[in-house]
Amino acid sequence: MVNVLTSGNSILNQFISELRDSEIQKDSLRFRHNLERLGGIFAYEISKNLSYTVKEVVTPLGIANVPVLTDYPVLATILRAGLPFHQGFLDFFDKSENAFISAFRKHHKDGTFSINIEYASVTEIENKVVILCDTMLASGSSMVLAFKELVTHGIPSHTHIVAAVASVEGLEYVKKNIAKKDITIWVGAIDDEMTAQSYIVPGLGDAGDLAYGKKH
Amino acid sequence: MVNVLTSGNSILNQFISELRDSEIQKDSLRFRHNLERLGGIFAYEISKNLSYTVKEVVTPLGIANVPVLTDYPVLATILRAGLPFHQGFLDFFDKSENAFISAFRKHHKDGTFSINIEYASVTEIENKVVILCDTMLASGSSMVLAFKELVTHGIPSHTHIVAAVASVEGLEYVKKNIAKKDITIWVGAIDDEMTAQSYIVPGLGDAGDLAYGKKH
Amino acid sequence: MVNVLTSGNSILNQFISELRDSEIQKDSLRFRHNLERLGGIFAYEISKNLSYTVKEVVTPLGIANVPVLTDYPVLATILRAGLPFHQGFLDFFDKSENAFISAFRKHHKDGTFSINIEYASVTEIENKVVILCDTMLASGSSMVLAFKELVTHGIPSHTHIVAAVASVEGLEYVKKNIAKKDITIWVGAIDDEMTAQSYIVPGLGDAGDLAYGKKH
Amino acid sequence: MVNVLTSGNSILNQFISELRDSEIQKDSLRFRHNLERLGGIFAYEISKNLSYTVKEVVTPLGIANVPVLTDYPVLATILRAGLPFHQGFLDFFDKSENAFISAFRKHHKDGTFSINIEYASVTEIENKVVILCDTMLASGSSMVLAFKELVTHGIPSHTHIVAAVASVEGLEYVKKNIAKKDITIWVGAIDDEMTAQSYIVPGLGDAGDLAYGKKH
Repeated sequence: MVNVLTSGNSILNQFISELRDSEIQKDSLRFRHNLERLGGIFAYEISKNLSYTVKEVVTPLGIANVPVLTDYPVLATILRAGLPFHQGFLDFFDKSENAFISAFRKHHKDGTFSINIEYASVTEIENKVVILCDTMLASGSSMVLAFKELVTHGIPSHTHIVAAVASVEGLEYVKKNIAKKDITIWVGAIDDEMTAQSYIVPGLGDAGDLAYGKKH
Repeated sequence: MVNVLTSGNSILNQFISELRDSEIQKDSLRFRHNLERLGGIFAYEISKNLSYTVKEVVTPLGIANVPVLTDYPVLATILRAGLPFHQGFLDFFDKSENAFISAFRKHHKDGTFSINIEYASVTEIENKVVILCDTMLASGSSMVLAFKELVTHGIPSHTHIVAAVASVEGLEYVKKNIAKKDITIWVGAIDDEMTAQSYIVPGLGDAGDLAYGKKH
Repeated sequence: MVNVLTSGNSILNQFISELRDSEIQKDSLRFRHNLERLGGIFAYEISKNLSYTVKEVVTPLGIANVPVLTDYPVLATILRAGLPFHQGFLDFFDKSENAFISAFRKHHKDGTFSINIEYASVTEIENKVVILCDTMLASGSSMVLAFKELVTHGIPSHTHIVAAVASVEGLEYVKKNIAKKDITIWVGAIDDEMTAQSYIVPGLGDAGDLAYGKKH
Repeated sequence: MVNVLTSGNSILNQFISELRDSEIQKDSLRFRHNLERLGGIFAYEISKNLSYTVKEVVTPLGIANVPVLTDYPVLATILRAGLPFHQGFLDFFDKSENAFISAFRKHHKDGTFSINIEYASVTEIENKVVILCDTMLASGSSMVLAFKELVTHGIPSHTHIVAAVASVEGLEYVKKNIAKKDITIWVGAIDDEMTAQSYIVPGLGDAGDLAYGKKH
């Protein structure tokens, strides 16, 4: 199941339009901040699907019975482009444990590239709800590889896969390569095309470069 | 119409439970941060009701037609308790103009109190969408007085009245004293009772004191 | 004594240059954020003059004797232009109590104006260190009136008066009208001139309008 | 040269005491926020050593000649523990390019461990000022390995090496293994001892675990 948060209008559209805009992108502080705000919105929407337990809370003036999160989800992200997006999730799920996985595009001389997982720092995820976020879901390879790395550390009870902007092709690739059971996909916008180098079109360019500078 | 954001479960419940908890309240940084996060969530939910215009955006790789906010709403709040809540709205609606209105509880010797508007710094609001937020909607007097002060500066096209926690009585008072047309009310939670001093029970105590310290 | 933080170079200069720049000012999110960052820097510099007490802290691996703030200063500001600057102080002094004072420029038909204090929400300040900040110190009237309002609530042990940008004339006015004892003045930059309407030249314009929108 | 920011008292001491305190550490939001605030303070202190160029800025009321940063430093950090600290630097140096390097402790059966660099995403650094920060400088191996990885991408004009808390032994190791020329070291506090597993005593425990959860 794919939830598209821009199927209806909201301030999320404004943030995504700013992320896409090559003029506004020159302000990397705003670029990162837009990803953080998006992270907060996705966190909130996903939180509607989590489990809550009613707790008796002592206020200065009485007792309130209020639902609190039964368990915080684990927040996983893909380096480096996922970091500002993850930051937004972590601001809302501030007690969550986290996982960081690197996905590195290795460009070959013939113009193709492969994606390597080099680094994975993963907390205990067995039987937990996991939110795996990356800014872009282009070819889908990084997301699928990151997911496969994750599940070597334990089997989540449910995984929410999240991208700010996804391609049609990348979504198909994820659906084909990750068992549909116990998976929910969330995206901000779906774009139709990709370049030969697997950049989404119109997309927004290279999210990692825009947030953190061009790689050497 | 009253929208209660906690009618379904979400991370908003977690934030409200922390706001209410007299132990967690000792950390005023977290108290303020919870109000900011609530402000972001309300901003997002309210933004689903605003107007959007499709704009052609040039990305580094193409052109995207994306909806952007037609106009930013004016963000009004009541001093001082509304400030951290307002901060959350302003973080999401970062291009908004703002209005600050003070409401001061003047306690009389006989135990009663009246509320005075002493300060109002209001931007142009004629025919604009206004979001008027305060942390608590207890008796409802501050909100009604602030609204009445606001409309001396112009008539908004629509006003969203927002409180993190409201009392049943306060909601009734607002509905009775503010014309229902062009008004939408949003609350995080509704509590049943009030003390003789018009504090909500169970509520969370004095939001201004908890965020900024006891008044002299 | 007047401490000018830009007497040596630091990132503070960058922030002040952005605050002044009429192009960069169009981004009110960055304008407010620059004031918050300035607030953090001033908070840090002023904190070097506060009292610390050595406390025994239990770490996961041992015991450390570390100096902690003996008392948090009270953070006072002037509405509405001082709010984002104050926010930066409060982020660093997160346990501080606060005071908010309104200063309203009442423009008269003959082109002159007077400043009225309409609202003051002040915490206990007797014998405490107080930091009173405002973004601009132009004529100095607001700062002096706010200080005089403050001391009707108690006599601070010391007051730090802070402005991001000050005029020569305003500084003279403050020095003349506030007893020098137990007062330290901190500014980011000092400008030479003022307009007939008491705006600092070159200054940065109206800080309140730039942060929050033009007043009606 | 080693600059110890706690040689005089400031709010930095308060933040370090909270980072160390095993009770306060239970709040991982505050733990991360303390590292962010520390990052801001270090950024500001280091910024006093950077180059500035006077620029003519047009304000709404005149022209100001103000010094601005000639070049933003590159911000490098070590994953994952360095991330919240780096976030504080990036908030102040918002136009900086960045480098992320992973250092992974591989524990061997005999109780020893080695540190591997697995991931390095590095921007152009040739002839630039680089700030390489990590939360803890324990044995010093991660910092030295990260530095050696960095310089395979170019030779910085100057490198600032920063740690919130360092051990005496780690500092010696860094001084011995990194050429002293064009290097400045900055630390928040220096602790005397280390455990057999190279944790600083009294230190603060495992910064990565405290910020992001125990690794699987």
